Amino acid sequence: MTFLLVVLFVALGAVAVAYAWSVYQKMMAFEVENPRIVELSGIIHRGAMAFLMQEYTWLAAFVGVVTILLWGALGFGSAFAFVVGAACSAGTGWLGMYVATQTNGRTTFAATRSAGDALDMAFSGGSIVGMLVVGIGLIGVSLTWLFLWGAVETLAAFGMGASSIALFARVGGGIYTKAADVGADLVGKIEAGIPEDDPRNPAVIADNVGDNVGDIAGMSADLFESYVNSIIAAMAIGVAFTSLYGDSRGALGMFGASFPLFLAGWGIISSIVGCLVVATKNPWSQIMFEYAGKIPHMNKILERIQSGDAAYALRVGAVIAGIKMIGGSFILSMLFFVTRGFHVFLSVTSGVVAGVLIGFATEYCTSSAYKPVRDLARASETGTATVILSGFSLGMKSTAIPVVLICLSTLLSYWLAGVFGVACAAVGMLSITGIALAVDAYGPISDNAGGIAQMSDLPSDVRKITDKLDSIGNTTAAMGKGLAIGSAALTALALFVAYAHAANLAAIDIMQPKVVVGLLLGGMLPFLFCSLTIEAVGRAAQAMIDEVRRQFREIAGIMEGTGKPEYEKCVSISATAALREMIVPGVLAICAPLLVGFFLGKGALGGLLGGAIVSGVMLALFMANSGGAWDNAKKYIEEGNYGGKGTPNHSAAVVGDTVGDPFKDTAGPSLNILIKLMTVVALVLAPLFS
Amino acid sequence: MTFLLVVLFVALGAVAVAYAWSVYQKMMAFEVENPRIVELSGIIHRGAMAFLMQEYTWLAAFVGVVTILLWGALGFGSAFAFVVGAACSAGTGWLGMYVATQTNGRTTFAATRSAGDALDMAFSGGSIVGMLVVGIGLIGVSLTWLFLWGAVETLAAFGMGASSIALFARVGGGIYTKAADVGADLVGKIEAGIPEDDPRNPAVIADNVGDNVGDIAGMSADLFESYVNSIIAAMAIGVAFTSLYGDSRGALGMFGASFPLFLAGWGIISSIVGCLVVATKNPWSQIMFEYAGKIPHMNKILERIQSGDAAYALRVGAVIAGIKMIGGSFILSMLFFVTRGFHVFLSVTSGVVAGVLIGFATEYCTSSAYKPVRDLARASETGTATVILSGFSLGMKSTAIPVVLICLSTLLSYWLAGVFGVACAAVGMLSITGIALAVDAYGPISDNAGGIAQMSDLPSDVRKITDKLDSIGNTTAAMGKGLAIGSAALTALALFVAYAHAANLAAIDIMQPKVVVGLLLGGMLPFLFCSLTIEAVGRAAQAMIDEVRRQFREIAGIMEGTGKPEYEKCVSISATAALREMIVPGVLAICAPLLVGFFLGKGALGGLLGGAIVSGVMLALFMANSGGAWDNAKKYIEEGNYGGKGTPNHSAAVVGDTVGDPFKDTAGPSLNILIKLMTVVALVLAPLFS
Repeated sequence: MTFLLVVLFVALGAVAVAYAWSVYQKMMAFEVENPRIVELSGIIHRGAMAFLMQEYTWLAAFVGVVTILLWGALGFGSAFAFVVGAACSAGTGWLGMYVATQTNGRTTFAATRSAGDALDMAFSGGSIVGMLVVGIGLIGVSLTWLFLWGAVETLAAFGMGASSIALFARVGGGIYTKAADVGADLVGKIEAGIPEDDPRNPAVIADNVGDNVGDIAGMSADLFESYVNSIIAAMAIGVAFTSLYGDSRGALGMFGASFPLFLAGWGIISSIVGCLVVATKNPWSQIMFEYAGKIPHMNKILERIQSGDAAYALRVGAVIAGIKMIGGSFILSMLFFVTRGFHVFLSVTSGVVAGVLIGFATEYCTSSAYKPVRDLARASETGTATVILSGFSLGMKSTAIPVVLICLSTLLSYWLAGVFGVACAAVGMLSITGIALAVDAYGPISDNAGGIAQMSDLPSDVRKITDKLDSIGNTTAAMGKGLAIGSAALTALALFVAYAHAANLAAIDIMQPKVVVGLLLGGMLPFLFCSLTIEAVGRAAQAMIDEVRRQFREIAGIMEGTGKPEYEKCVSISATAALREMIVPGVLAICAPLLVGFFLGKGALGGLLGGAIVSGVMLALFMANSGGAWDNAKKYIEEGNYGGKGTPNHSAAVVGDTVGDPFKDTAGPSLNILIKLMTVVALVLAPLFS
Repeated sequence: MTFLLVVLFVALGAVAVAYAWSVYQKMMAFEVENPRIVELSGIIHRGAMAFLMQEYTWLAAFVGVVTILLWGALGFGSAFAFVVGAACSAGTGWLGMYVATQTNGRTTFAATRSAGDALDMAFSGGSIVGMLVVGIGLIGVSLTWLFLWGAVETLAAFGMGASSIALFARVGGGIYTKAADVGADLVGKIEAGIPEDDPRNPAVIADNVGDNVGDIAGMSADLFESYVNSIIAAMAIGVAFTSLYGDSRGALGMFGASFPLFLAGWGIISSIVGCLVVATKNPWSQIMFEYAGKIPHMNKILERIQSGDAAYALRVGAVIAGIKMIGGSFILSMLFFVTRGFHVFLSVTSGVVAGVLIGFATEYCTSSAYKPVRDLARASETGTATVILSGFSLGMKSTAIPVVLICLSTLLSYWLAGVFGVACAAVGMLSITGIALAVDAYGPISDNAGGIAQMSDLPSDVRKITDKLDSIGNTTAAMGKGLAIGSAALTALALFVAYAHAANLAAIDIMQPKVVVGLLLGGMLPFLFCSLTIEAVGRAAQAMIDEVRRQFREIAGIMEGTGKPEYEKCVSISATAALREMIVPGVLAICAPLLVGFFLGKGALGGLLGGAIVSGVMLALFMANSGGAWDNAKKYIEEGNYGGKGTPNHSAAVVGDTVGDPFKDTAGPSLNILIKLMTVVALVLAPLFS
């Protein structure tokens, strides 16, 4: 039976991979007839792949050591699942980067034709990335589950493998991209006065490579990890709990374990439909549109999408995927849990709805279309300190709504279907990861395409098209970010409960001094972790600044365009710094739960996880939203508001943006993974502590 | 028996008050023979007192409403204790401010004679403030205890009264002082280019009033609140637990309740001895020195103190008070708990030691004598954004050591003497509040004295003396700040345990979804609270900036010194803003536990408190230390390092300092009170939820 189910899940995963493959084939058929674009995108491609290879070499050693330790401590099953999880995560990141760096040049060239072509190309790349994550995720989890003969408790090691890789990818990628970005901006834009993405800037290639390393590989690894861990947590809880909530059909437990996989599988179908809404040139999309045209009121929506309103198309795609997901989860829940089916369905829905609403809240706080960011831009009139303080308090305040939404979803889903309901809410929220990631990844691809346009001296309207796509991407990306944080919180909570069961903890009582101590230490770790990553970015950026300054000083004719900058030196500085600096935070995340578990016991470890989730979620929201708001306030001023470029107001906003960069691209996103990684490490090692 | 004990405690409290009174008499006998100083200190005195009267009028209404509600809900005892606690806190703040604003002018005049005279005068003021806090605290708690016929559980309402007043005083005072400070600095120093404390600056009086309102009244209320709450929490736990730990003599329970009071009483004696070490001109001090001179090796120490090394004297005073406290607690513990006495003694000691070490850690992170602040100053070389990021990550990192110390002290004292041990550690840490506050309060008095010197055109060497005292005060004040945060954490933990017992909670299990929801909401509140207070400072500062700019524009001859600035308008802007802006954060702090308790139950409320303590302690440490480090990095640059005044490095450091101001003087310190107030509100209202 398990075997048959796994065949089904693998098939559903394969649908996602096949969709990605078909889009990839079509994309590769598109010839870029501009040698400069080909050359530049080739350099970026090779730089990105080279970094990933370096990173993976290091991580292979790390994975090897941990595998041996796990084998010794917990047996072959865990070690095997860990390796497969790590490999799937690394493979997903590698493929995603590979595709994205193939897409950027094509998007640039497509933009020389029309905005529609460019959108199509960029979104193709994004949807491949998205589909690979969910496809490989579902296939990986279900095959490993089969291999382990249905031993769900061992499956957690798969999640731990994925988490470990994700943490290093996020931290390393975040450091890489920000070091290059700061170096390029500070010396190039401010000191030398040349525009962004100018080929005379030695750090320009590193900067463009960094966008891929951070925003594509990092984000993919992050969501891959959330995705598989939410499924695994729900499976683990499902096995333990379905007998309580399921009826005759659910009593076997296996139904509880397979339900999250069904949800995920249906999420893939929903995501593909959502993608097809945007990818209007896909033949499947055209068939779909033909049928949909017969539904009343749909025609207007379809027309607006086909007219090329990209922002609208992306949003409608996501909403349709969400609606399909909710509809499908209704049928699945009723089939699985009969009398309690409606309760489970509402739990799943609460997760989906909370995810979408958190996305809106994120957008409200970070988009220049709304009051908060405009107020932040106005704060630049009274100077730099005011911009910093306003962005700071905006970010702190922005924690309130998402936390309340997470709390409501938790309470509601628990009330409806117990702990299993909470786990299902997390799966529900993440089920549409495919489309969310597609919408998210298309942004950095457009950004890169713009960079290539600038560097290859294409006419300015090409850059305008890519800039437009990029700026739409910035807004829609809020959904992805909201999802990443919201799902991290729910997934961590689900993993936390799974840990408590695995460790045979009847309660994690924060009246116990050891637990309180764990709680305090856990609450402190995200602060320490942020500090480490921000400092790492600072050191790496300093090395980059020194190198760029040196090149401007020493290479003759660099400003006139006759001397060629040594791009590869900057690339290697970013890469080396990222690899060196990711070690300490990564080791901290893995060792802290271990040490507390061994020395203070499993109760204190539970407290540690609770504390880390609480302060980690708050800091992640605060940092992501402050950073996003500063970024967009600067852009808003650059559009000519409150003085525009070149005024003191703009300088003040630039400082805000620079402070926000490591917040939103390094420290903040890494926190999402930190809390999940610590929890899953605890879950995997729980047998050792109990 | 209780009656006799209370007589003893009141007598010990009276010793503190008598000491304060004798110092006050001597101080008042010192005539200021400079009419300009008298005039200026009179203006500051009246401004400060007027604000406090306004604030207390508002708070009287608030206290009235809460008293009626408490009376209805919990009976007369609680309502009475609440009023007395509020009145004691308000009275302490009022007296402290009264004395401090009498001392500042005298210190200025003393500085025209000698540095030793000035130190003596400033420290006299500080020690009066410190002694009043501990004296009134001990008298208030013990008399209320007697009045309630030993009902310790009702005594918590006394702490709630003190906490409520403290929160408003801290928030209001913090907003007042920062609005005035920013207004005076930004328009006066930066825009108009006149020096600090220049009488031509319309906001100068408001700024000097603000130092008293924030640093004297706010800090006194904060430590008063920690002091009484730690005693009350220990008494409450002592009653419940002493039968477990005490022997024959402790079995009555009353011994457990009175032990913390004995500790506090002995702390008063220790603090007075510590004060006498510094106040070498006091006749008691001279007697003490004569005896101490006979102890081997003491002579060198005494000589160095008598030679006028102020920094050394303050430190030796604090250390001697600490040693005396530890010695006394040994005797008390052995008398009370016989066989377990040594365990209780070690618990108390662990608190004292943790408090001192947290002080050192704070000093290391925020003093320009050490690497972190010097590195921060160097970061100014690469611009404003780097200063902000470095200060930010320094603050985040600085949470680690204090949290580890708090954890160690908690674990150790629990292991030794159970929950009662934890509570005793908090009392131990706070027992030397008298000297700590004396050392802390003398700083702002010196600062004010310097302001008066500047405004009355005294020769520059007078200002140099007061600046020297102020800068020594800045370093030694680290101890006070460390104490405020460390004790807040321990006191909140002790109150938290007391709450759980009062609410009959067998466990606060964070595996329960409601408790997790409480935990998340609780973790979010400090972030929201910080955001509210920082924004309040921003709004108030903006109003001040507008007013100062208007006066510079409209008042003829203001820059030449012929036109007189309208000081009182600025004072009234700060006052009105502070009173208006303190309401929302204050109400949030009181209503949040109420709402969660009523709607989600007592378990969720426990989670809320846990979450608030975790993220509140981290944020408080982070904000206080970032702010302090930015402040001292700026001063370090002003001393001529990394370019000195007027360079871009200095401008970058000034931005850091401006960002840090509301961190360290408004939001950070208010968080200490927030977590205690929420916990004590829960404790008082626990009977309603169970």
